[in-house]
Amino acid sequence: MTRQELQEQIRQKKSMLCIGLDTDLDKIPDHLKSSEDPLFEFNKAIIDATHRYTVAYKPNIAFYEAYGLSGWQSLEKTINYLNREYPDIFTIADAKRGDIGNTSLRYAEGFLKKLNFHSITVAPYMGSDSVKPFLQVEGKWVILLALTSNPGATDFQTTSLNTYKLSEPEMLYEKVLRISSEWGTPENMMYVVGATQAEYLKKIRNIIPEHFLLIPGVGAQGGNLQEVLKYGMGQEPNLLINSSRGIIYASDQRDFAEEAQKAASKLQAQMQAFVV
Amino acid sequence: MTRQELQEQIRQKKSMLCIGLDTDLDKIPDHLKSSEDPLFEFNKAIIDATHRYTVAYKPNIAFYEAYGLSGWQSLEKTINYLNREYPDIFTIADAKRGDIGNTSLRYAEGFLKKLNFHSITVAPYMGSDSVKPFLQVEGKWVILLALTSNPGATDFQTTSLNTYKLSEPEMLYEKVLRISSEWGTPENMMYVVGATQAEYLKKIRNIIPEHFLLIPGVGAQGGNLQEVLKYGMGQEPNLLINSSRGIIYASDQRDFAEEAQKAASKLQAQMQAFVV
Repeated sequence: MTRQELQEQIRQKKSMLCIGLDTDLDKIPDHLKSSEDPLFEFNKAIIDATHRYTVAYKPNIAFYEAYGLSGWQSLEKTINYLNREYPDIFTIADAKRGDIGNTSLRYAEGFLKKLNFHSITVAPYMGSDSVKPFLQVEGKWVILLALTSNPGATDFQTTSLNTYKLSEPEMLYEKVLRISSEWGTPENMMYVVGATQAEYLKKIRNIIPEHFLLIPGVGAQGGNLQEVLKYGMGQEPNLLINSSRGIIYASDQRDFAEEAQKAASKLQAQMQAFVV
Repeated sequence: MTRQELQEQIRQKKSMLCIGLDTDLDKIPDHLKSSEDPLFEFNKAIIDATHRYTVAYKPNIAFYEAYGLSGWQSLEKTINYLNREYPDIFTIADAKRGDIGNTSLRYAEGFLKKLNFHSITVAPYMGSDSVKPFLQVEGKWVILLALTSNPGATDFQTTSLNTYKLSEPEMLYEKVLRISSEWGTPENMMYVVGATQAEYLKKIRNIIPEHFLLIPGVGAQGGNLQEVLKYGMGQEPNLLINSSRGIIYASDQRDFAEEAQKAASKLQAQMQAFVV
C-alpha cells in the first residue's frame, strides 16, 4: 500500500484509528471459547464490527506465539481474512523484530511476503543492516521503534548522548530518528512514537516532518488524544493512532463486537475534525 | 537448567560450543528436500551427529517463521526432540524479542513455557519492563543483547553517552550491561556479546565479571577464538561460543552430518585446553 493510498483512506473515513488485535484467550467472551478457533472467531467479529471506523489493524504477534502452532494458525487466518475481505485496510505485524542482515531477511520473508502484511514493527538496537532488509521488500513498510510508551522507555531511549556536532544534546531516540530516516523514505518508513505530550511531539516533528507516526498509548495506556492530533499530525494526515484493549475488550459478554464498534466509533468521532 | 548444571556440562565435555540451528531450505542437502519435514530432518541429523561436542543448541526463530505454519511445526519438533533426547543440553530460542510488560509475558509464555526452551534472547531497547517478565519464569534464562557482531552495531550500541557520574565516558552497550545486570542475577541472565577483541572483552568483564557471555561471530563471522577464550571466560567457565553456518553447512551433500561433526569436533578441540 502506498502512502497516498493510506492518506486517501484516512481522508475518506475521517479516521487515523489503528486497532490492536492483542487477542488473549483469557479475555475473550466465554461463549467463543468452545469454537474451533476462538482467537480467529473473536478477531473476525471485531474486524467486521469496526472496519468502517479504522484504517489499520495491528495484531501483536506475541499474543499468537503464546499458543504455539495453534496461535500461528489463528494469525494466518486473521491476516488472510483481512487481505481478502478488507484489502484497503493497512495491516501491521507488531513483531518488534530485528537481527543481523541475513536473519532480518528471513523475518521479512515470513511477515511481509508469506503472511503478506503491509508492514512490520522493527527494533532499532542492532542498527542499519538489521532494518534495511525489511525495506527491500517492494511496496511494504518498516515501522521502527523510536520512543515507546512503557515505563522502561526511560532506561535507554531518553538517555542523553555525548554529541559533539550538534548545537544541543540529543537523546538516543532522537538519534534513532535522525540516523534511520536516511535508511528509507517517508514512502516506506514510519515510526512508533509513544509520545502524547506536545513538547516531545514538536521535537519529533522537527526531526521527521513527513514520516507517518504510529502512536500507541491512547486509551488503556492513557495518552492525551487532543495533543497528539494537534502536534503529531504534520502537514498531511501522517498519523496512525492505536487503541487495543479499550476497543477489543470494551465488553467480555455476547455484545463484545457491538461494544467494540461503539468504542471505535467514539474514537473516530474525536478524530474527524482533525483530518485535513 | 541451573548455572551450576551448565558449568558442569562444560567441564565434562570440555566444550563451550553452542551450535546455531539457522536452518534454511535453500542450503540443506537436496536429498532431504523431498522428506515430509526437511527442516526437522536436517536438524535431527545435525543434533545426533554433534551432541557430544556441544553444550547448547540455538535455533534462530526467523529461519522457522519464514515458512509460516510449517516452519513453526519444524521448530516445535526440533525443541521437543532436544528436550526428550538430550535434556542436559542447554537450549536457546534466538528470538530477540522485547515488548511492553504484558506482551513480553506472552512471549515468555510461548518460548519458555509452551515450547520449553531453557532461554530466550531479548533486545534491550524498551527497557526494564520489557525484560523482567522473562526473568519471572522460574529456572529459565534471559540472554540480553548488549554488543552485537554485525556492522550496524556501531550505529547505536557504541554511541558515547553524556555520563555525569562516571569517571570515564560510557557507551550505550556498557550502560545496557550496567543497568540491566541489576534486573536479574548471574543465575538467570546472560549477555550476547559479539566482541572478539581483547580490549572490549576486558571492559565487559569489568562490568559483569560473573555473567555468562554468549559470543556469536566465531566462525562464519570471523571472530578470533583464542582472544575470546583468554579474555571472555571469567573465573569459571562462564562462556558460550556460537557457531552456526560453519558447522551446519560444512557440506551440502549426503555427508553433511558427518562433516558437521568434524567441524564441531575441531572447534571443541580448540576449546578444551581453556576449560578450567
